[in-house]
Amino acid sequence: MFLYWGSGSVPCWKPMIVLAEQGLWQDVPNKLLSFSNKEHKSEEVMKLNPRGQAPTFRDGDLVVCESGAICQYLDDKYSNDDNRLIPTDAAQRSQVYQRMYESLNLHAFVIQTLYYYKRTTKKEDQDANYLKEKIEAAEVEISRWNVYLEGKEYLACDKFTMADVFFYPFLAIFVRLGVKLEKNTNLQKYYDRITQRASVQATWPPHWKEGPGPAILDDVKA
Amino acid sequence: MFLYWGSGSVPCWKPMIVLAEQGLWQDVPNKLLSFSNKEHKSEEVMKLNPRGQAPTFRDGDLVVCESGAICQYLDDKYSNDDNRLIPTDAAQRSQVYQRMYESLNLHAFVIQTLYYYKRTTKKEDQDANYLKEKIEAAEVEISRWNVYLEGKEYLACDKFTMADVFFYPFLAIFVRLGVKLEKNTNLQKYYDRITQRASVQATWPPHWKEGPGPAILDDVKA
Repeated sequence: MFLYWGSGSVPCWKPMIVLAEQGLWQDVPNKLLSFSNKEHKSEEVMKLNPRGQAPTFRDGDLVVCESGAICQYLDDKYSNDDNRLIPTDAAQRSQVYQRMYESLNLHAFVIQTLYYYKRTTKKEDQDANYLKEKIEAAEVEISRWNVYLEGKEYLACDKFTMADVFFYPFLAIFVRLGVKLEKNTNLQKYYDRITQRASVQATWPPHWKEGPGPAILDDVKA
Repeated sequence: MFLYWGSGSVPCWKPMIVLAEQGLWQDVPNKLLSFSNKEHKSEEVMKLNPRGQAPTFRDGDLVVCESGAICQYLDDKYSNDDNRLIPTDAAQRSQVYQRMYESLNLHAFVIQTLYYYKRTTKKEDQDANYLKEKIEAAEVEISRWNVYLEGKEYLACDKFTMADVFFYPFLAIFVRLGVKLEKNTNLQKYYDRITQRASVQATWPPHWKEGPGPAILDDVKA
Protein backbone atom coordinates (compact mmCIF):
# COMPACT_ATOMS: atom_id res chain seq x y z
CA MET A 1 0.00 0.00 0.00
CA PHE A 2 1.02 3.61 -0.48
CA LEU A 3 -0.83 6.77 0.55
CA TYR A 4 -0.20 10.34 -0.56
CA TRP A 5 -1.83 12.72 1.91
CA GLY A 6 -2.01 16.31 3.07
CA SER A 7 -2.00 17.60 6.64
CA GLY A 8 -5.39 18.75 7.96
CA SER A 9 -7.36 17.57 4.92
CA VAL A 10 -10.65 15.86 5.83
CA PRO A 11 -10.52 13.48 2.85
CA CYS A 12 -6.95 12.43 3.72
CA TRP A 13 -7.59 12.02 7.41
CA LYS A 14 -10.49 9.58 6.96
CA PRO A 15 -8.54 6.64 5.45
CA MET A 16 -5.65 7.33 7.86
CA ILE A 17 -8.03 6.84 10.81
CA VAL A 18 -9.31 3.62 9.21
CA LEU A 19 -5.75 2.31 8.83
CA ALA A 20 -4.96 3.27 12.43
CA GLU A 21 -8.11 1.51 13.67
CA GLN A 22 -6.88 -1.59 11.82
CA GLY A 23 -3.44 -1.30 13.43
CA LEU A 24 -1.86 -0.77 9.99
CA TRP A 25 -1.12 2.97 9.81
CA GLN A 26 2.38 2.87 11.27
CA ASP A 27 3.44 0.33 8.61
CA VAL A 28 1.89 1.92 5.52
CA PRO A 29 4.46 3.66 3.28
CA ASN A 30 3.19 7.18 2.73
CA LYS A 31 4.16 10.67 1.69
CA LEU A 32 3.01 13.92 3.22
CA LEU A 33 2.39 16.39 0.39
CA SER A 34 2.69 20.13 0.71
CA PHE A 35 -0.44 21.68 -0.79
CA SER A 36 1.17 25.12 -0.79
CA ASN A 37 4.06 23.74 -2.88
CA LYS A 38 1.45 22.12 -5.17
CA GLU A 39 2.96 18.69 -4.60
CA HIS A 40 -0.49 17.17 -5.21
CA LYS A 41 -0.05 18.34 -8.83
CA SER A 42 3.35 16.64 -9.19
CA GLU A 43 3.93 14.07 -11.92
CA GLU A 44 4.33 11.38 -9.28
CA VAL A 45 0.77 11.95 -8.04
CA MET A 46 -0.82 12.87 -11.39
CA LYS A 47 0.23 9.63 -13.06
CA LEU A 48 -1.82 7.72 -10.48
CA ASN A 49 -4.57 10.33 -10.06
CA PRO A 50 -5.15 12.63 -13.05
CA ARG A 51 -7.20 14.93 -10.81
CA GLY A 52 -4.03 15.73 -8.88
CA GLN A 53 -5.63 15.46 -5.47
CA ALA A 54 -4.87 13.98 -2.09
CA PRO A 55 -5.59 11.39 -0.93
CA THR A 56 -4.11 9.28 -3.70
CA PHE A 57 -3.88 5.67 -2.69
CA ARG A 58 -2.74 2.43 -4.20
CA ASP A 59 -2.70 -1.14 -3.00
CA GLY A 60 -0.59 -3.16 -5.40
CA ASP A 61 -1.92 -2.31 -8.85
CA LEU A 62 -5.22 -1.07 -7.49
CA VAL A 63 -5.60 2.72 -7.41
CA VAL A 64 -8.37 4.33 -5.34
CA CYS A 65 -8.45 8.06 -4.77
CA GLU A 66 -11.88 9.04 -3.53
CA SER A 67 -11.65 9.24 0.23
CA GLY A 68 -14.92 7.42 0.91
CA ALA A 69 -14.01 4.71 -1.58
CA ILE A 70 -10.62 4.13 0.07
CA CYS A 71 -12.32 3.83 3.47
CA GLN A 72 -14.90 1.33 2.25
CA TYR A 73 -12.23 -0.66 0.39
CA LEU A 74 -9.96 -0.82 3.43
CA ASP A 75 -12.81 -1.99 5.64
CA ASP A 76 -13.83 -4.66 3.09
CA LYS A 77 -10.31 -5.92 2.66
CA TYR A 78 -8.43 -5.52 5.93
CA SER A 79 -10.92 -5.36 8.81
CA ASN A 80 -11.74 -8.36 10.93
CA ASP A 81 -14.66 -9.10 13.25
CA ASP A 82 -12.97 -7.15 16.05
CA ASN A 83 -12.32 -3.89 14.22
CA ARG A 84 -14.88 -3.79 11.39
CA LEU A 85 -16.07 -0.19 10.89
CA ILE A 86 -19.14 -1.01 8.80
CA PRO A 87 -21.12 -3.69 10.64
CA THR A 88 -22.29 -6.84 8.86
CA ASP A 89 -25.97 -6.52 9.83
CA ALA A 90 -27.89 -4.77 7.00
CA ALA A 91 -30.05 -2.64 9.32
CA GLN A 92 -27.05 -1.42 11.31
CA ARG A 93 -25.12 -0.85 8.09
CA SER A 94 -27.93 1.36 6.78
CA GLN A 95 -27.59 3.69 9.76
CA VAL A 96 -23.82 3.87 9.34
CA TYR A 97 -24.20 4.59 5.61
CA GLN A 98 -26.80 7.28 6.38
CA ARG A 99 -24.40 9.27 8.56
CA MET A 100 -21.43 8.60 6.24
CA TYR A 101 -23.17 10.10 3.22
CA GLU A 102 -24.84 12.79 5.30
CA SER A 103 -21.49 13.99 6.60
CA LEU A 104 -20.34 14.70 3.04
CA ASN A 105 -22.78 17.65 3.04
CA LEU A 106 -20.75 19.37 5.75
CA HIS A 107 -18.21 20.44 3.16
CA ALA A 108 -20.82 22.46 1.28
CA PHE A 109 -22.64 23.67 4.40
CA VAL A 110 -19.61 25.03 6.24
CA ILE A 111 -16.32 24.80 4.38
CA GLN A 112 -17.35 25.87 0.90
CA THR A 113 -19.99 28.49 1.68
CA LEU A 114 -18.33 30.01 4.72
CA TYR A 115 -14.65 29.13 5.14
CA TYR A 116 -13.64 29.49 1.47
CA TYR A 117 -15.80 32.60 1.10
CA LYS A 118 -14.25 34.33 4.11
CA ARG A 119 -10.73 33.30 3.15
CA THR A 120 -11.00 34.46 -0.47
CA THR A 121 -13.13 37.60 -0.08
CA LYS A 122 -11.61 40.78 1.34
CA LYS A 123 -13.30 41.81 4.57
CA GLU A 124 -14.64 45.03 3.03
CA ASP A 125 -16.11 43.08 0.09
CA GLN A 126 -17.89 40.48 2.21
CA ASP A 127 -21.67 40.56 1.89
CA ALA A 128 -23.15 40.85 5.41
CA ASN A 129 -26.50 39.33 4.40
CA TYR A 130 -24.82 36.38 2.71
CA LEU A 131 -22.63 35.83 5.78
CA LYS A 132 -25.55 36.03 8.20
CA GLU A 133 -27.56 33.52 6.17
CA LYS A 134 -24.66 31.07 5.81
CA ILE A 135 -23.64 31.34 9.47
CA GLU A 136 -27.20 30.53 10.50
CA ALA A 137 -27.32 27.60 8.07
CA ALA A 138 -24.02 26.28 9.45
CA GLU A 139 -25.32 26.58 13.01
CA VAL A 140 -28.53 24.72 12.11
CA GLU A 141 -26.51 22.02 10.36
CA ILE A 142 -24.07 21.56 13.23
CA SER A 143 -26.97 21.40 15.70
CA ARG A 144 -28.52 18.49 13.77
CA TRP A 145 -25.47 16.42 14.62
CA ASN A 146 -25.82 17.36 18.27
CA VAL A 147 -29.34 15.88 18.18
CA TYR A 148 -28.04 12.69 16.56
CA LEU A 149 -25.67 12.28 19.53
CA GLU A 150 -28.37 12.66 22.18
CA GLY A 151 -27.79 9.87 24.71
CA LYS A 152 -25.14 8.28 22.51
CA GLU A 153 -21.37 7.96 22.59
CA TYR A 154 -21.00 7.31 18.87
CA LEU A 155 -22.97 8.45 15.85
CA ALA A 156 -24.53 5.32 14.45
CA CYS A 157 -24.05 2.30 16.72
CA ASP A 158 -22.93 1.61 20.28
CA LYS A 159 -19.35 1.54 19.05
CA PHE A 160 -17.01 3.57 16.82
CA THR A 161 -17.94 3.05 13.15
CA MET A 162 -17.27 4.47 9.71
CA ALA A 163 -19.92 7.10 10.50
CA ASP A 164 -17.55 8.54 13.12
CA VAL A 165 -14.58 8.24 10.73
CA PHE A 166 -16.45 10.37 8.18
CA PHE A 167 -17.87 12.93 10.61
CA TYR A 168 -15.19 13.54 13.23
CA PRO A 169 -12.56 15.16 10.94
CA PHE A 170 -15.12 17.79 9.94
CA LEU A 171 -15.93 18.49 13.58
CA ALA A 172 -12.23 18.73 14.44
CA ILE A 173 -11.65 21.23 11.64
CA PHE A 174 -14.65 23.30 12.69
CA VAL A 175 -13.27 23.48 16.24
CA ARG A 176 -9.80 24.37 14.97
CA LEU A 177 -11.27 27.14 12.82
CA GLY A 178 -12.96 28.67 15.85
CA VAL A 179 -16.51 27.24 15.83
CA LYS A 180 -17.87 27.42 19.38
CA LEU A 181 -19.81 24.38 20.61
CA GLU A 182 -21.47 26.31 23.42
CA LYS A 183 -25.04 25.14 23.03
CA ASN A 184 -24.28 21.75 21.55
CA THR A 185 -22.88 19.97 24.57
CA ASN A 186 -23.31 16.49 23.08
CA LEU A 187 -20.98 17.52 20.29
CA GLN A 188 -18.49 19.05 22.71
CA LYS A 189 -18.37 15.82 24.74
CA TYR A 190 -18.14 13.75 21.56
CA TYR A 191 -15.30 15.94 20.31
CA ASP A 192 -13.40 15.57 23.60
CA ARG A 193 -13.92 11.80 23.64
CA ILE A 194 -13.03 11.01 20.02
CA THR A 195 -10.06 13.39 20.06
CA GLN A 196 -8.47 11.15 22.71
CA ARG A 197 -8.98 8.02 20.64
CA ALA A 198 -5.67 6.30 19.77
CA SER A 199 -6.40 6.19 16.01
CA VAL A 200 -7.14 9.93 16.01
CA GLN A 201 -4.08 10.84 18.06
CA ALA A 202 -1.84 8.67 15.84
CA THR A 203 -3.04 10.51 12.72
CA TRP A 204 -3.45 14.04 14.13
CA PRO A 205 -2.53 16.60 11.44
CA PRO A 206 1.15 17.40 12.01
CA HIS A 207 0.86 21.14 11.37
CA TRP A 208 -1.96 21.40 13.92
CA LYS A 209 0.57 20.53 16.62
CA GLU A 210 2.51 23.69 15.84
CA GLY A 211 -0.17 26.06 17.07
CA PRO A 212 -3.81 27.12 16.94
CA GLY A 213 -5.66 27.51 13.64
CA PRO A 214 -6.92 30.73 12.09
CA ALA A 215 -10.17 31.62 13.89
CA ILE A 216 -12.01 32.15 10.59
CA LEU A 217 -15.25 30.57 11.78
CA ASP A 218 -15.36 32.10 15.26
CA ASP A 219 -18.66 33.80 14.45
CA VAL A 220 -20.31 30.38 14.21
CA LYS A 221 -21.73 29.67 17.66
CA ALA A 222 -23.38 26.32 17.55
CA MET B 1 -40.94 -0.27 2.15
CA PHE B 2 -42.10 3.22 1.27
CA LEU B 3 -40.33 5.82 -0.87
CA TYR B 4 -41.08 9.53 -1.17
CA TRP B 5 -39.53 10.87 -4.36
CA GLY B 6 -39.47 13.77 -6.80
CA SER B 7 -39.48 13.63 -10.59
CA GLY B 8 -36.12 14.33 -12.26
CA SER B 9 -34.12 14.42 -9.01
CA VAL B 10 -30.76 12.61 -9.23
CA PRO B 11 -30.84 11.50 -5.57
CA CYS B 12 -34.37 10.10 -5.97
CA TRP B 13 -33.70 8.35 -9.24
CA LYS B 14 -30.72 6.35 -7.94
CA PRO B 15 -32.59 4.14 -5.42
CA MET B 16 -35.48 3.78 -7.90
CA ILE B 17 -33.06 2.30 -10.47
CA VAL B 18 -31.69 -0.05 -7.78
CA LEU B 19 -35.20 -1.24 -6.92
CA ALA B 20 -36.01 -1.71 -10.61
CA GLU B 21 -32.80 -3.71 -11.13
CA GLN B 22 -33.93 -5.91 -8.25
CA GLY B 23 -37.39 -6.36 -9.82
CA LEU B 24 -38.99 -4.64 -6.82
CA TRP B 25 -39.84 -1.14 -8.02
CA GLN B 26 -43.33 -1.88 -9.33
CA ASP B 27 -44.33 -3.27 -5.91
CA VAL B 28 -42.85 -0.61 -3.64
CA PRO B 29 -45.49 1.76 -2.23
CA ASN B 30 -44.34 5.27 -3.03
CA LYS B 31 -45.45 8.86 -3.34
CA LEU B 32 -44.39 11.34 -6.00
CA LEU B 33 -43.86 14.69 -4.29
CA SER B 34 -44.29 18.04 -5.99
CA PHE B 35 -41.21 20.14 -5.18
CA SER B 36 -42.95 23.29 -6.48
CA ASN B 37 -45.80 22.68 -4.01
CA LYS B 38 -43.17 22.13 -1.30
CA GLU B 39 -44.55 18.68 -0.51
CA HIS B 40 -41.04 17.61 0.57
CA LYS B 41 -41.53 20.03 3.50
CA SER B 42 -44.89 18.46 4.50
CA GLU B 43 -45.41 17.09 8.02
CA GLU B 44 -45.69 13.59 6.54
CA VAL B 45 -42.15 13.78 5.17
CA MET B 46 -40.63 15.94 7.92
CA LYS B 47 -41.57 13.51 10.69
CA LEU B 48 -39.44 10.85 8.99
CA ASN B 49 -36.78 13.20 7.62
CA PRO B 50 -36.29 16.47 9.52
CA ARG B 51 -34.30 17.84 6.56
CA GLY B 52 -37.50 17.76 4.50
CA GLN B 53 -35.87 16.28 1.44
CA ALA B 54 -36.55 13.63 -1.15
CA PRO B 55 -35.74 10.81 -1.26
CA THR B 56 -37.16 9.86 2.11
CA PHE B 57 -37.26 6.11 2.52
CA ARG B 58 -38.32 3.63 5.13
CA ASP B 59 -38.23 -0.13 5.35
CA GLY B 60 -40.30 -1.18 8.35
CA ASP B 61 -39.02 0.94 11.23
CA LEU B 62 -35.76 1.69 9.49
CA VAL B 63 -35.49 5.19 7.99
CA VAL B 64 -32.75 6.00 5.45
CA CYS B 65 -32.79 9.27 3.53
CA GLU B 66 -29.38 9.81 1.99
CA SER B 67 -29.60 8.58 -1.57
CA GLY B 68 -26.27 6.75 -1.54
CA ALA B 69 -27.10 5.13 1.78
CA ILE B 70 -30.46 3.87 0.48
CA CYS B 71 -28.74 2.39 -2.56
CA GLN B 72 -26.07 0.60 -0.52
CA TYR B 73 -28.69 -0.64 1.96
CA LEU B 74 -30.96 -2.00 -0.79
CA ASP B 75 -28.03 -3.81 -2.40
CA ASP B 76 -26.94 -5.30 0.94
CA LYS B 77 -30.43 -6.42 1.84
CA TYR B 78 -32.29 -7.32 -1.34
CA SER B 79 -29.79 -8.17 -4.08
CA ASN B 80 -28.85 -11.73 -4.93
CA ASP B 81 -25.91 -13.18 -6.83
CA ASP B 82 -27.63 -12.45 -10.15
CA ASN B 83 -28.40 -8.78 -9.65
CA ARG B 84 -25.87 -7.55 -7.09
CA LEU B 85 -24.81 -3.99 -7.97
CA ILE B 86 -21.72 -3.88 -5.74
CA PRO B 87 -19.63 -6.98 -6.46
CA THR B 88 -18.38 -9.20 -3.64
CA ASP B 89 -14.70 -9.14 -4.67
CA ALA B 90 -12.86 -6.41 -2.72
CA ALA B 91 -10.75 -5.21 -5.68
CA GLN B 92 -13.80 -4.91 -7.96
CA ARG B 93 -15.75 -3.25 -5.16
CA SER B 94 -13.02 -0.62 -4.80
CA GLN B 95 -13.42 0.42 -8.45
CA VAL B 96 -17.20 0.61 -8.10
CA TYR B 97 -16.86 2.69 -4.90
CA GLN B 98 -14.35 4.97 -6.64
CA ARG B 99 -16.80 5.93 -9.39
CA MET B 100 -19.75 6.08 -6.96
CA TYR B 101 -18.08 8.65 -4.73
CA GLU B 102 -16.48 10.43 -7.67
CA SER B 103 -19.88 10.94 -9.31
CA LEU B 104 -21.06 12.89 -6.27
CA ASN B 105 -18.72 15.70 -7.38
CA LEU B 106 -20.79 16.23 -10.52
CA HIS B 107 -23.38 18.10 -8.50
CA ALA B 108 -20.85 20.77 -7.52
CA PHE B 109 -19.05 20.79 -10.89
CA VAL B 110 -22.10 21.26 -13.08
CA ILE B 111 -25.41 21.61 -11.26
CA GLN B 112 -24.43 23.95 -8.43
CA THR B 113 -21.89 26.18 -10.15
CA LEU B 114 -23.58 26.39 -13.53
CA TYR B 115 -27.22 25.31 -13.58
CA TYR B 116 -28.26 26.98 -10.30
CA TYR B 117 -26.21 30.06 -11.14
CA LYS B 118 -27.78 30.52 -14.56
CA ARG B 119 -31.28 29.79 -13.27
CA THR B 120 -31.07 32.21 -10.36
CA THR B 121 -29.06 35.05 -11.89
CA LYS B 122 -30.68 37.42 -14.39
CA LYS B 123 -29.00 37.21 -17.79
CA GLU B 124 -27.77 40.82 -17.57
CA ASP B 125 -26.28 40.17 -14.13
CA GLN B 126 -24.38 37.01 -15.11
CA ASP B 127 -20.60 37.34 -14.89
CA ALA B 128 -19.11 36.34 -18.25
CA ASN B 129 -15.72 35.41 -16.78
CA TYR B 130 -17.31 33.27 -14.09
CA LEU B 131 -19.46 31.52 -16.71
CA LYS B 132 -16.53 30.90 -19.06
CA GLU B 133 -14.45 29.40 -16.24
CA LYS B 134 -17.27 27.18 -14.99
CA ILE B 135 -18.28 26.01 -18.47
CA GLU B 136 -14.68 25.01 -19.15
CA ALA B 137 -14.49 23.21 -15.80
CA ALA B 138 -17.72 21.35 -16.56
CA GLU B 139 -16.40 20.34 -19.99
CA VAL B 140 -13.15 19.06 -18.47
CA GLU B 141 -15.09 17.15 -15.84
CA ILE B 142 -17.49 15.57 -18.31
CA SER B 143 -14.57 14.58 -20.57
CA ARG B 144 -12.95 12.67 -17.68
CA TRP B 145 -15.92 10.32 -17.69
CA ASN B 146 -15.58 9.85 -21.43
CA VAL B 147 -12.02 8.62 -20.81
CA TYR B 148 -13.23 6.23 -18.12
CA LEU B 149 -15.55 4.66 -20.70
CA GLU B 150 -12.85 4.12 -23.34
CA GLY B 151 -13.34 0.58 -24.63
CA LYS B 152 -15.95 -0.17 -21.97
CA GLU B 153 -19.70 -0.60 -21.89
CA TYR B 154 -20.06 0.15 -18.20
CA LEU B 155 -18.15 2.39 -15.84
CA ALA B 156 -16.49 0.06 -13.37
CA CYS B 157 -16.87 -3.59 -14.35
CA ASP B 158 -17.94 -5.59 -17.39
CA LYS B 159 -21.53 -5.32 -16.20
CA PHE B 160 -23.93 -2.69 -14.88
CA THR B 161 -23.02 -1.75 -11.28
CA MET B 162 -23.75 0.82 -8.62
CA ALA B 163 -21.19 3.05 -10.35
CA ASP B 164 -23.59 3.33 -13.30
CA VAL B 165 -26.56 3.85 -10.95
CA PHE B 166 -24.78 6.83 -9.39
CA PHE B 167 -23.44 8.33 -12.61
CA TYR B 168 -26.12 7.84 -15.26
CA PRO B 169 -28.81 10.11 -13.72
CA PHE B 170 -26.34 13.02 -13.79
CA LEU B 171 -25.55 12.33 -17.44
CA ALA B 172 -29.25 12.11 -18.31
CA ILE B 173 -29.91 15.45 -16.63
CA PHE B 174 -26.98 17.08 -18.40
CA VAL B 175 -28.33 15.87 -21.76
CA ARG B 176 -31.85 17.06 -20.89
CA LEU B 177 -30.48 20.49 -19.95
CA GLY B 178 -28.83 20.82 -23.33
CA VAL B 179 -25.24 19.61 -22.80
CA LYS B 180 -23.87 18.48 -26.17
CA LEU B 181 -21.82 15.28 -26.19
CA GLU B 182 -20.21 16.07 -29.52
CA LYS B 183 -16.59 15.26 -28.75
CA ASN B 184 -17.26 12.66 -26.10
CA THR B 185 -18.58 9.83 -28.23
CA ASN B 186 -18.04 7.17 -25.56
CA LEU B 187 -20.41 9.09 -23.33
CA GLN B 188 -22.95 9.51 -26.13
CA LYS B 189 -22.96 5.76 -26.81
CA TYR B 190 -23.13 5.02 -23.09
CA TYR B 191 -26.04 7.43 -22.74
CA ASP B 192 -27.90 5.80 -25.62
CA ARG B 193 -27.27 2.30 -24.26
CA ILE B 194 -28.14 2.90 -20.59
CA THR B 195 -31.19 4.98 -21.50
CA GLN B 196 -32.69 1.88 -23.11
CA ARG B 197 -32.10 -0.23 -20.04
CA ALA B 198 -35.36 -1.61 -18.56
CA SER B 199 -34.64 -0.28 -15.04
CA VAL B 200 -34.02 3.20 -16.43
CA GLN B 201 -37.10 3.18 -18.65
CA ALA B 202 -39.28 1.93 -15.77
CA THR B 203 -38.18 4.82 -13.58
CA TRP B 204 -37.86 7.59 -16.21
CA PRO B 205 -38.88 10.94 -14.66
CA PRO B 206 -42.60 11.33 -15.48
CA HIS B 207 -42.41 15.05 -16.26
CA TRP B 208 -39.59 14.43 -18.76
CA LYS B 209 -42.08 12.53 -20.93
CA GLU B 210 -44.13 15.70 -21.36
CA GLY B 211 -41.54 17.54 -23.44
CA PRO B 212 -37.92 18.69 -23.69
CA GLY B 213 -36.11 20.33 -20.80
CA PRO B 214 -34.96 23.94 -20.57
CA ALA B 215 -31.73 24.21 -22.59
CA ILE B 216 -29.94 25.99 -19.74
CA LEU B 217 -26.63 24.16 -20.27
CA ASP B 218 -26.54 24.30 -24.08
CA ASP B 219 -23.30 26.29 -23.99
CA VAL B 220 -21.54 23.26 -22.49
CA LYS B 221 -20.06 21.36 -25.42
CA ALA B 222 -18.33 18.34 -24.07
